[in-house]
Parts: sequence; C-alpha cells; structure tokens
Amino acid sequence: MSGGVRVRLESDSLGAVEVPAEAYWGVHTFRARENFPISGTPISRHPALVRAIAVVKQAAARANRGLGLLTAGQAEAIDAACERIARGELHEQFCVDVVQGGAGTSTNMNANEVIANAALERLGHERGRYDVIHPIDDVNRSQSTNDVYPTAIRLAVVAALRELIPELARLADAFADRGTAFAGIRKVGRTQLQDAVPMTLGDEFSAFAVAVREDVARLEEAIPLLLECSLGATAVGTGVTAPQGFREAVVAELRGLTGLDVTPAAHLFEATWDAGGFLHASAMLRRTAVKLSKICNDLRLLASGPQAGLSEIRLPARQAGSSIMPGKVNPVIPEVVNQIAFAVIGADVTVAVAAEGGQLQLNAFEPIIAQSLLQSSGWLTQGVRVLREHCVEGIEANAALLEERVGRSVGAVTALVPVIGYDAATAAARHALASGATVAESVALVSGLSVDEAERLLA
Amino acid sequence: MSGGVRVRLESDSLGAVEVPAEAYWGVHTFRARENFPISGTPISRHPALVRAIAVVKQAAARANRGLGLLTAGQAEAIDAACERIARGELHEQFCVDVVQGGAGTSTNMNANEVIANAALERLGHERGRYDVIHPIDDVNRSQSTNDVYPTAIRLAVVAALRELIPELARLADAFADRGTAFAGIRKVGRTQLQDAVPMTLGDEFSAFAVAVREDVARLEEAIPLLLECSLGATAVGTGVTAPQGFREAVVAELRGLTGLDVTPAAHLFEATWDAGGFLHASAMLRRTAVKLSKICNDLRLLASGPQAGLSEIRLPARQAGSSIMPGKVNPVIPEVVNQIAFAVIGADVTVAVAAEGGQLQLNAFEPIIAQSLLQSSGWLTQGVRVLREHCVEGIEANAALLEERVGRSVGAVTALVPVIGYDAATAAARHALASGATVAESVALVSGLSVDEAERLLA
Amino acid sequence: MSGGVRVRLESDSLGAVEVPAEAYWGVHTFRARENFPISGTPISRHPALVRAIAVVKQAAARANRGLGLLTAGQAEAIDAACERIARGELHEQFCVDVVQGGAGTSTNMNANEVIANAALERLGHERGRYDVIHPIDDVNRSQSTNDVYPTAIRLAVVAALRELIPELARLADAFADRGTAFAGIRKVGRTQLQDAVPMTLGDEFSAFAVAVREDVARLEEAIPLLLECSLGATAVGTGVTAPQGFREAVVAELRGLTGLDVTPAAHLFEATWDAGGFLHASAMLRRTAVKLSKICNDLRLLASGPQAGLSEIRLPARQAGSSIMPGKVNPVIPEVVNQIAFAVIGADVTVAVAAEGGQLQLNAFEPIIAQSLLQSSGWLTQGVRVLREHCVEGIEANAALLEERVGRSVGAVTALVPVIGYDAATAAARHALASGATVAESVALVSGLSVDEAERLLA
Amino acid sequence: MSGGVRVRLESDSLGAVEVPAEAYWGVHTFRARENFPISGTPISRHPALVRAIAVVKQAAARANRGLGLLTAGQAEAIDAACERIARGELHEQFCVDVVQGGAGTSTNMNANEVIANAALERLGHERGRYDVIHPIDDVNRSQSTNDVYPTAIRLAVVAALRELIPELARLADAFADRGTAFAGIRKVGRTQLQDAVPMTLGDEFSAFAVAVREDVARLEEAIPLLLECSLGATAVGTGVTAPQGFREAVVAELRGLTGLDVTPAAHLFEATWDAGGFLHASAMLRRTAVKLSKICNDLRLLASGPQAGLSEIRLPARQAGSSIMPGKVNPVIPEVVNQIAFAVIGADVTVAVAAEGGQLQLNAFEPIIAQSLLQSSGWLTQGVRVLREHCVEGIEANAALLEERVGRSVGAVTALVPVIGYDAATAAARHALASGATVAESVALVSGLSVDEAERLLA
Repeated sequence: MSGGVRVRLESDSLGAVEVPAEAYWGVHTFRARENFPISGTPISRHPALVRAIAVVKQAAARANRGLGLLTAGQAEAIDAACERIARGELHEQFCVDVVQGGAGTSTNMNANEVIANAALERLGHERGRYDVIHPIDDVNRSQSTNDVYPTAIRLAVVAALRELIPELARLADAFADRGTAFAGIRKVGRTQLQDAVPMTLGDEFSAFAVAVREDVARLEEAIPLLLECSLGATAVGTGVTAPQGFREAVVAELRGLTGLDVTPAAHLFEATWDAGGFLHASAMLRRTAVKLSKICNDLRLLASGPQAGLSEIRLPARQAGSSIMPGKVNPVIPEVVNQIAFAVIGADVTVAVAAEGGQLQLNAFEPIIAQSLLQSSGWLTQGVRVLREHCVEGIEANAALLEERVGRSVGAVTALVPVIGYDAATAAARHALASGATVAESVALVSGLSVDEAERLLA
Repeated sequence: MSGGVRVRLESDSLGAVEVPAEAYWGVHTFRARENFPISGTPISRHPALVRAIAVVKQAAARANRGLGLLTAGQAEAIDAACERIARGELHEQFCVDVVQGGAGTSTNMNANEVIANAALERLGHERGRYDVIHPIDDVNRSQSTNDVYPTAIRLAVVAALRELIPELARLADAFADRGTAFAGIRKVGRTQLQDAVPMTLGDEFSAFAVAVREDVARLEEAIPLLLECSLGATAVGTGVTAPQGFREAVVAELRGLTGLDVTPAAHLFEATWDAGGFLHASAMLRRTAVKLSKICNDLRLLASGPQAGLSEIRLPARQAGSSIMPGKVNPVIPEVVNQIAFAVIGADVTVAVAAEGGQLQLNAFEPIIAQSLLQSSGWLTQGVRVLREHCVEGIEANAALLEERVGRSVGAVTALVPVIGYDAATAAARHALASGATVAESVALVSGLSVDEAERLLA
Repeated sequence: MSGGVRVRLESDSLGAVEVPAEAYWGVHTFRARENFPISGTPISRHPALVRAIAVVKQAAARANRGLGLLTAGQAEAIDAACERIARGELHEQFCVDVVQGGAGTSTNMNANEVIANAALERLGHERGRYDVIHPIDDVNRSQSTNDVYPTAIRLAVVAALRELIPELARLADAFADRGTAFAGIRKVGRTQLQDAVPMTLGDEFSAFAVAVREDVARLEEAIPLLLECSLGATAVGTGVTAPQGFREAVVAELRGLTGLDVTPAAHLFEATWDAGGFLHASAMLRRTAVKLSKICNDLRLLASGPQAGLSEIRLPARQAGSSIMPGKVNPVIPEVVNQIAFAVIGADVTVAVAAEGGQLQLNAFEPIIAQSLLQSSGWLTQGVRVLREHCVEGIEANAALLEERVGRSVGAVTALVPVIGYDAATAAARHALASGATVAESVALVSGLSVDEAERLLA
Repeated sequence: MSGGVRVRLESDSLGAVEVPAEAYWGVHTFRARENFPISGTPISRHPALVRAIAVVKQAAARANRGLGLLTAGQAEAIDAACERIARGELHEQFCVDVVQGGAGTSTNMNANEVIANAALERLGHERGRYDVIHPIDDVNRSQSTNDVYPTAIRLAVVAALRELIPELARLADAFADRGTAFAGIRKVGRTQLQDAVPMTLGDEFSAFAVAVREDVARLEEAIPLLLECSLGATAVGTGVTAPQGFREAVVAELRGLTGLDVTPAAHLFEATWDAGGFLHASAMLRRTAVKLSKICNDLRLLASGPQAGLSEIRLPARQAGSSIMPGKVNPVIPEVVNQIAFAVIGADVTVAVAAEGGQLQLNAFEPIIAQSLLQSSGWLTQGVRVLREHCVEGIEANAALLEERVGRSVGAVTALVPVIGYDAATAAARHALASGATVAESVALVSGLSVDEAERLLA
C-alpha cells in the first residue's frame, strides 16, 4: 500500500519502486513517467502506434515459438495479450509521454511490461510474476528497441497514410464533381492576381481534383519505403541475440498479421539508423499540405465578399462568422485546413532536423519523428474530411456575376495576338480599359479588322 | 431529451440545435465542435489561455459597467463567472478544438457562452436565458474576437514565458554550480571536434550558465512586446461598437487584474493584424531551444562511453538504457530536450508561415500561432526543469581521465607560438604526435629552447 | 613559371605549392580554393565582410604594436594594408568560396596572407617574404580564427543592418505619406477576406507604416548583441597566445576604428561557441521579411483587377506584364519582395540548424551563417528600396470605386449592434444582402427604429 | 549615343528606352534590370536554365514552322540562335536578376529578345528589326511565360539532377570501397553515443554506401515528375493563341531535342499553377542533404582526436587546420558538406513557402523556386564530389585502437542475454565496468557458466 493505493514492488538496476498493483506496466514505465513529464500526451493518444507495437510483438512471439525460444504456453499467452491490444484494449496502459528520450526504449519497455502482465493474467498469474513470463527475456526475445520501435512507427505511419489516402481521393472526387457542375460557367482567369484570359469555373475546380489526385499517388509511393523492416537487426544491425532464422520468420509473421507487403531491410546496419523513409513520408505529407493550403487560399479568395470581394463562389455557411459583425459568414473550414498545413510544414522541419541529428548506429530522436508524422497525418485526415463534407461538396457558383465579368474583360483580346500582333493588341487593351469601349471596338480601332470581324474572332 | 441526455434548444442564424442542458456552452460552441474535429485537443488543454480569456472578459465587464453599458447585476454576475474560470473552474467547458478556423471566433464564443451561463447560474437563472445576460450583447459587449482573442493569446504566452524564465534561471544556476565544482579540473578543449588547447571543465560549464542566462534576458524582453493590447479596436481597428472611454478603461482594468504592465497598442489597425509580437516570442523560444539543444549535444558527447567514448563526465543514470544491452545507461534526459528543441524549431516555422499568411485587416491564423507558442513554451518549461533536476545537478566529472589526457595533449604547444613561431610549433606538434615524444622534448628538438625551458613555458 | 603564368612557391605543413607570383594570397588560400569549389561565390561578394576582417586585423596590429609585439615598421605596414582593404582595394584577392569548411580559417588565412603581402609591398619587399612580415606570426598575432572570424561577421552584419534600417525607415515614411494621402478615402475593411466594417484607406496604409517602423526598432535592438566581441579569446576562450592587456587594447582600437559601441564579451568561452547573436539577428530579419511579405500580399490583393478584382489601388506600372496578354500590368515589385521574404525565411532555418550544430568550444558552421545573414540583409535592403521607389511612392487609390462599395456595404450595420442587439442586426444584414434593400431600410424592418433614425446612426 | 556608348531605341507600352546598340537584349530586359537589382546574380549564373529556355524556344520554333506560323527563314534563324545559346554562347546576354517578380516574364522576355536579335544577326539584319523577327509575335509564338518558364525550370532541374545523381553514385561506390577495405576491422558499435555491441568498421561504411544509393533511386524517381510539360497551355491552360496541334508538336520536338522522356501534362490548368514537381524535387534534395549531413557528422565524430577523441578513422589532411594551433588538422571537407546540407534544408523551406503562395491560375513565385532548386542541386553536386575526392577515398582506419577497445568492451555481454537472461547479464556488465574484471569473468560470477564457457560464447 502507498497512500491507499495497493502497490507491488518492481526493481531494475537502479533499485526498487512501487507501482500500482493493478497496473499492467512496471518499473521501466515507472521510470519513464518520472523522466518525461513533457507533453502530457501519452502514447495511447496514437492508437495506431500502440496497435503497431502489439502486432510486432505478436509476430516476434510467433517467430520465437517457431524457433523454440518460447514455450507454447508462453507464446500463446503473449499472442493473446497482443491480440487484446491490437483490438483496442489496454491502451490506457500505454502511459509514457510521446515525447521521450531513450530512442523509444521506454515505449518498447512499456509494451513489454503491459504484454507480459496481460499474458500472465491470461495464464492465471499475478502481475509481476516475471519468472513465468519476463518482459525482456520473453516478450522482447530476439528483439531490441532499435528494431522494434522504428518498425512499429513505420507500421503506424502506414496505417495513418492508409486513412488519409482514401479521404484525399474522396476530396478529389468532390472537386471533380464541382468541376463537372461548373463546366459551363465562364469566368476571367487570373495570373498574378491580375485579370488574364477567359476560362471556366469547371476548369478551375477540375484542376483542384487533379492536383489532389496526384498527391494520392505520391503518398501511395511512400508506403513501400516504410514497409522495409529492420526486425532481426537488434541493437545495431548485427542481429546479436536474434537466432538464425528469426529475421525471416518474424517478417513472414508480420506480413501475415498485417496483410501488408512488409519486406526485410536491405542492409540492417543502415536500416537501424536511417530515417530516410520517415523523411520521405514527411515530405509527401508536406506536399499534400502545401497543395491543400494553396487550394484553400483560392477558395477563400474566390469566396471573398459578399459585396466587396471577388464573390465568384459561395462556401456553405457553417457558423456565425463573427462575435461582432452580424451576418458575416467566414470561410472557417478552409481556414482550419490552412492552419493544419502550416502545422504540417513546421512538423516537417522538425522531422528533418531530427533526422539530421541521428548519430552513428542509431537515430535517438525517433520519438519526435513519430509524434510529428502521426500528428501531421492525423490532422490532415480530419482536415481533408471536414473540407470535403463541410465545404467543397456544398460550394455554389455566382454564375451571373462571373458571366457578366467575363463579358467585359479585356483579357479576351489575347486571342487576337496571333492575328493582329502583340503590339496592336496591347494598344487595343489599353484603349478598352481607358475608354470603356468594348474589346471588339478597340480592336477595330487599332487594326485592319472591322468590329464584326473582331467580334467573330473573340467569340 | 435526445438519446437520454437532457438538452436545451439554442439557435443562431443557421437554425436551432440541441445542446446538453447542463452545458455552459451553447450553439456557437456546438457549431465549432462540429466544424473542427481536428486535433482532439480542446482549448482547456491550455489553461493559461482559458484563464487569459476570462480575465479579459472580466476587465471588459468592469469597463462596461463603468460606462453604464451593463447593469450592476449583470456586471457582477459576469465578473464572478470570470473569477471562477480564472481560479481554474469550468475549464472543461472550453471544449472547442485548439486547431480551429474563424480566427478564434469559436474560442471567443465558447468563452462568451460559458461566462453568460455561469453568470446566469449565479443570478439563479436557467442556462440559456440570454434575455437576461446575452453571450454577445452583454459578455462580448464593446469587444470583438479580433481584439479579445489576440489579447488573450498574448496574456497566455506571457504567463507561459513567466513560467519558463525562472526555470531557465534555475538551470543557469545549476550549470554555474557545476562550473564552480569543476573549476579546477583541466581538460583538452576541442574545436571542430579536434583537440585544441587546455582549458577547464569549469570553464565549459560556466559557459553553459552564461548562455542560458542570456536567453533569460532575451525572453524577458519579449514580454513588453506581448503586453501591447488592442482591446478597443473591435473588428478592424475603428473601435466600432466600443464607446468612447472603453479602451482606456479596459486596459486599466486589465492592468489591475493581471498586475502586468499592459499597454494600449500604438495603432489599432496595425495591432489588429500584426503578428510581430508572436513572431518575436516564437523566435526567442527558438533561440532558447537551439541553445539548449547545442548544450545537450555537448552533454551527450562529453558523457559518451563509458569505455569507447569521451567519458569526460557522467550523467545521472535515470533508467535502464536498453531493452537488449544490459547495463547500458543512456543520456535520456538530454535526448528528450533535444527533441523538444526540434519541435520548437518546427513550431517556429509554423508561426512564421501563419504570420505571413495574414491578410488585410486580420490574421485569421492566430489559433495555430497560439497552439504553437503555448506548446513550445510549455514543453520547454518541462524540459528545462527535467534537465536540471534529473541531469545537470547530478553531473560528475571523470577528473582523473581528463587530467591524464590533458597531460599528454600536443595542443599545449599553442602557448609557445608567440615564442618559437607558428612553423616551428607545427613541426613540434607533428613530431610529438608521430613519435610519442613529449611536447617539451619535441619543442626542444625544433627550436633553440632546452627541454627545461620548454617545460617551464608550457606549465 | 607554370603554364606561362609567373609563380612563386609557398609551403605549409602539407608541402609546397605554386601560387601566381602576383597574387597577394598564398598557400593557405590555395588549399582553400582547391577544397571549396562549392558556390562559385568568393567572399569578395560580401564587401562588408572583407572590410570587417580588415578592420579587425588593423585593430589587432595597433594593439600588438602597443604591447610591443610588432615593430613600428611592421605595424604601420600592416595598418596601411588593412586601410587599403577597408577602402575597397584588393577585394578581388579575397577569393575563397563563401561556403567553406574549417570554421572560417580559410577566410582568416586569406586575409592574413593578403594583408601580409600588401604590407610587404608597402615596405618594398617581394611577396612571400614572410620572414619580414608573417601572415600568422605577425598579421594574426594574438588572434585566432575563432575570435577574428565571428567578430568580423558580427561587424559585417551590423554594417548590413545599418544599411537596411534607414531603407526600412524610408519605406515606413512612404507608407505614412500614402496614409496621409488616403486619409479621407472610406473603404470596406475586411477580415478573413470577408467584408467587415468601414474604415479608410489611410488607416490601412498608416498601419503599414507603423508595422515597418516597429521592425526598425527591433533591428536596432539586435545591433548591441552583435557588438559583443570575443577578441582576446583566441582558440577556445583561454586567451592563449594573446598577452595580458591585448583584449582591452584591441577592443578599444576597434571602437576607435569603427565608431561603433563594440563591447568585450562577458564570458570568452561562451562567446567562442555561442551563435545567439546571429540567431537573434536572423530572427529579426525574418520578422521584417514576414511583415513585408504580408504587406506585399495585401498590395497585390488590393491592386487585383483591373476589372475582375478588388481594384482598390493602382500600383505604378513598371514593365509589360505578360509575354502573351496585351496590356496586362503585374505587381512585379511586390512579387519580388515576397520572394525575397521566402528566401529570408528559408535562410533563417539554415541559420537555426547551423547554430544548433555547434559542438563543444566552437561553432564550425559560421561560414554558412555569415552567408545566410549577409544575403538576407542585402536582398532585403535592395527589396525595400525597390518597393518604396518603384511601387509604394506611386500608389494611387480608386477612390470612387471604394466610396461606391462602402456606401452599399452591409458591414455598416455593426455600428448598430449596441443599439438593436446582435440578433436583430444579424437579421437586418441578412435581409439587406438577400433583398438588395439598403442597410437603413433593413434595420428599420427588424427594429423599432425608423429609416431616418437608422440612417443617422449609421452615418 | 548615351554617355559615349552607342545605343538603339526600343519601346514598350511604357515608352521608349535606350539600350546599348550591341546588346542582344531589348526594352523588356531593360525594364527588368531596373526593377530587380536584388541579388546581383544574373540568370546566366544558371547555365542549365539558360540552355533549357533556348531548347524550349527551339522546339517551339520548329513546331510553329510545321504549323505554318513562321516562315522557313524565320524558323531557321530562330533555330540557329537557340542552338548557339544551347552551345553556351550569348549567355552573358541573360542578364536579368534571378530573383525577379513577374513570374518569370522577364526571363522569358530576355530570352525572346536575345533570340530575336541573334536570329536577326544571322539573317544579316541590325538588332531591333523586330518587323522581321519579333521577340513576342515570332519567338514567343504560341507560347506564354506561364508555360515556357516552368518548363524551362523543369528541364534545368532535371539537368542538375542528372549531374548530381552520378556524383552520388560515385560517392556510394567510394563508401562501399571503404566498407570492403574495413570489412575485417572490429569495433564497438554505438547507440545514443553510448557503447553498444561489437560490429565492424566495414559494416559502418557499407551502411553509408547503402544510404547514399537509396537517395540515387529517390532522385531518379523525381525526374519523370519534372518532365511533365505544360507547353501549349499558354496563359492559364486554355491554350489561347496556341493553334491546334501545337501542343503535340512542341512536346515531340522537345523530346527529340533533349533526348528526354518529356510528357504532356495531364491537365493544363492544373499544370499551370501546380508546384508539386518542384516541391518533390526539393524534398528529395533535402533528403539527400540530411543523409549526407548525418554521415558527415559521423565522419567528424569518428575522426575526432587525435588524442582526446574517438580517433577511429583518419580523414585525409587537406589544409592546415588552424591559424593558431600548430599541427591541427580539421575535418574541413565534411564540415563544408554539413553547411551545404543546412543551406539545402533552408532552401527547401523557401520552396515550400513559395509553393504555398501560388494563387489561382499561376504560381508567381517560380523564380525563387528555380533559384533555390538550382543552388541546392549545384552545391550538392560540388559537395558530393569534393567529399568523395578529398575525403572518403582517402579515409584510413586506426585498426589497432579499434581492436583494443572492442576487446575490453562490456557490450559483448549482450550476446549472452539469451543464455543467462537480461538481469544476470546486467549484473555482469556492471561488475565488469566497476571492477575492471573481464566480461567473461564477470559473467561467470553472476551465472552458472564457467569463465571458459563464457569466453567461448562471447567469441
């Protein structure tokens, strides 16, 4: 007992500590909780990461059993414990801060302890009976944090990308749908924010669709790079403590358990320190973010007004826009996506700096890489969904206004450059703007064309 | 009733919604919760921000009362409601996501609603009796999100800095203490990771103290910039809806309530969109982060080993270092500080991009700026404390090893450059390294000095 | 002779090399040119840096002479050589790439060699007569790259800031002038790109002036931090090879030569590795860049059109805008300033990463810090000047259009919120937008006010 | 004549100007030189970009001729002019600043003018006879800056990547060669800078080879994305002024002229504003930079010493390391590569911010994107070559020291964890470190194994 809470004693090389008797976690988690009171965000806030660690441990248990390193009873108990976690149970036991030193050791130890005690529970033993199932000697058997932790991050990021990708695809569809709906609506195209030549609003929205779809392809390409797995490398790549055959066996089990095309890393030493796959995934998330931000900037600009702005489109009203200005409706959904993008751009810098900081046989900064990637992908997934549901699908065009504007735009004169030459066309454009004359009239004035001819060519 | 939960009806310009009858928040918060399911982090996770909004509302209520815009009864009830929040109550009612569109309108509305209902409760009314106290007409009286929200962020960031600054000062003291403790321990200084000239370990640690102390000064300088307050500007800076005298009154109340040297912004239009103070604070946090990261890199390097590294110092063992390598003790505390620094560097980019994105009379991206600054300052505060308590205060020197190394280092020959010249000194250094001869012997060989003279000059 | 070019032999610890007989630089520069063929940009492209090194060497020569470490003849010759360089001569001899390894050693050596040979020339000696004046033993006397190089960068950055600051002040004046010119022109203010409440175009431009002026103050504050000088620290801070009294003497000479308030660094060990002053200057440059970019975004937006945009202002036409669209005039000046800002934001990240990378007693990455800071400040100075001269000073307002828009804007209803309440005002705004009725008519419809009363309150 | 220089008059819509009679460039270039005195770096400093523009113009001339839009005489003259530029002639005529507003219009105009005048020269006409060959009507025929300029950047970046990629491959080979040379040299592996388990120096260097080779693959994947070409889109994607058939023809010509697999963009509107390909290339360059920086950090760390560092390897001495410390040899080559990497990381942020800043139908910030990408790829190419030639190829191992260290390292005990368990192994490791006993002796003390058995298992 300690302050009324029932406790049990656990010890490590630094001495003994009291942990709550009911806790599945043990001394290593206890130390980590003391050491890392940083963000207040436990790793349970990233369920994909918790599930990924569980499935790695499950694959390892199966491989170890096949190699005779665990008894059937141990292996089955561990397997079942991992299964529970993969199903979503016991996540609250993953209570170490996501921002942690130790290159993920505390996350791995937290998992080893929770799985050991859940396995002991299944076998009818009390928590802490590590003589029966030991967090390190058994659950961590043939493994090291240095292969388990990055593998789990990779699987978690893949899971996160696989949530983002279909959302992006749906967003692309929604833009394409708007593109179709707006296909016949002519408007003034703009470059450098200045009026350019006529196009359609459909062209503009179908371009958004194409842009988003390209990112789907790029994100998909990032996945195989993440599925290169260093299990079997153990501490630095030599595979010390992992017996012959373990590496092949664990990768095979992992493929079976995840249904993913997990492949063994080409070079275990390189794989142990290389953060290239993370950098790549981060860069692809940033790419998506940058593009979404550009598109949201456009949506906000096109929807500016209602009276003193471009007013080309109307975004669905989602909430009262102002605490002071009655009737104001703001583009709150694109704005939140912009901000997600800014966060992703910043997180990508964090990933780059952390990747650069790796030293010798390991990158000790994988926890912040994991945090950054999982936050970015999670926020993007939510933002993309919200953008589609609460904004894009309901966008409407101010067709009359667009038509009115395109009708009097001098940008149309561009079409006549091949006929009357750049210099004459320039003179016509300037005349039209200054005098208020129509484009056709202005063209007639500076060229040999009649107004009728000019009108026909401009149509 | 809706699914068993008692509800009440509230409506805005988009229609009516059911909110839980017990909720202090209302329709505007309801919309925001629907619109922004992004990060899963409610604003209540930043208690400094919640308290800051409450104190701004309290100051406004007092100013409004003084100007006769609220009855005594209304003003006192609002005041008391704000007081509760400032004390830490009702924070769970601040449930809008920190990552939100709308330039903070949802945060402001959330506050307006919670305060209105808490005030109604105090007056014995049911929630939703906005005819008695209205979230906008009364609680938000003479205000706009566009002046309230940035002011609240500023106050919250100041509060966060005022937590960080004394922690940093204590860290500087801890380094200075180690500097004193190590004052007599000679060591080989290193530049570009190559052996340079002799110095003391005390010099090295006192330099850390000086470096950290300088950041204390820089962070303090950021505070007055943050205390420039745009209250009274309302929507864009014209002060529309804020009566004559409100601006002076509300700033005076805010000074009284916070004890801080809040000053009125010099130009209300500029103040409404300018993110310069945030950028400045972010840059100072980054500066601190960069310096801490450099110092932590040094600590990890100096503590490398124990057998095959520099092994100049020993960091306190905080946890078993490895799930596979027995007895390994890792520099987990500096590592977590490095990662905090990487996150701060990234968040600073987010702030810069968000600041650049402001348009015309407002920066709509203040929510992500707030989130970034509050996260950075909070993580740094925790990291700095942990670094001091769990690492710096317990650092010990491997004095014998340091002395042994400095004794045979050829870097000592530098001291003779003024006597024998750079070229002869170079020859002596190269001879000593190649032959194993002592520095004094080598100097004697290439110069007119005797070994005794050389030894005397080197001492 | 070597390939027809007359050469002289020089040697260092790696052996002898042939350098052009006419070159003032010698073997160390020769090595550096071989080692660093990176950017193709020699340090002579940063004349402020070359001049700063010369003045540091000059100050050192004077201090050394005062301490009896150089003869009068040597000191005078070195002094005169430095003077030539400070005047702008011999800069082409500073031919090492700005992007260099070695923590600036090559830049310092390049300077030592050029100064030694220029001094020899003055004394009537051939180049390479280092027995008379030695690049290291004499020109570098009592110094190390590790104190000379960062001091020179600091002085160069100060010089660069002192060019930027008055340009910024002039830009602020130009904005203020426009603010005055536009003082009477009413317009629709915008927040979140949506129409908000009425203000004046003068308010908008005077806000730009205030924003820019604040950066002037922040940049000025960065200067004293840069003027802390580590001369006398030599290699790591111990001052080895620098005699008693040198530090005070050299700082005093430097103050005299530069007229700047150069101060001795508080802690020489810290000063030798600390990049805080550089980070600070970089952050202030970024701050300026971010603000300029926001302002340029606004200018481009306000000038959008001419027919289908906001068209509130007209920027001076500076060049034909398009190779295809006749008559198009683009906001090319704000666009180039935006791009300068983006480059500064990126360079600032470079500075942060380089600062973080310092190790132990030195930051070896000062060359890229110098390059980044000098590029950023130089580009900003040019951009700010161009922005003022070619854009801001000639901006004109489309006053009629602005007035027409503000007259029918429903944003005006905000002023009535204190009178009729937020909910009624919202209804009025919505009615006006939907029906085309005037604001006053709409207010009358939803409140007890008459149209006349409403009009009077709205005026 | 103007100040003694012969001039000719040219005019645009802003009026007439005098350009040097000998200049191939004309009025548009003149305006741009006045408008953009920013970086002092003319576009001729990026010869790949100049060549790329020439080849695009050449392809367009051929396509226009095929479509009957240019006479054979005009087309041949333009073709020959482009050929000269592609061969490297006339580059000094490309004198507009790389940092420019106008979305590249000035670069395109500069090219149009130089090509027109070179073509006129070939036909025996004076410069400025644009009635014969017009810079816009003829050279720019069927084109717009908005399709020409990004296409040219893309081709230039591809050319730059194709220089970088083989250099990287050679660097990988050099690392692999060192890996082979060091294959038999055992050493202590390190994770988190702490001694871990034994490995070989060959493992370490072959990992560098693998890491670099992976980046070769990633950079190659970036090329097809860059070869999507928007020619035929003209101003916004509608293809206005480009006749039927032009798009297919120009792409075919471009494929023929470049030998590259240039493909038509899938969606011309999207292609006109999308910066995704640039972002992708930038991210891949950053990836390479981050990895190289990590490797260079390792090289510097492994080479630290010579007496008080790790001293595992010796880098070739490239220059005297210090202006003050005789005999010091610094890792100047890795240091310069680190700094290149920092610059690339910063430039990548610039690219991201510029990409995000695109608006509506165009990204006006392509000039700074081009500058950033071409600088990053160019610097990397030089850095990678220098790293290989001046550093990696000459690296030697301190084999004796490495062997001595690995012999006494307690990390070896990890191999016995599967036999004696983690807890006993931990006790053995701690005993060995504290007492100086051998690992085998310590293992025997805490387990049932004899010293002989332990030694056998550790071997």
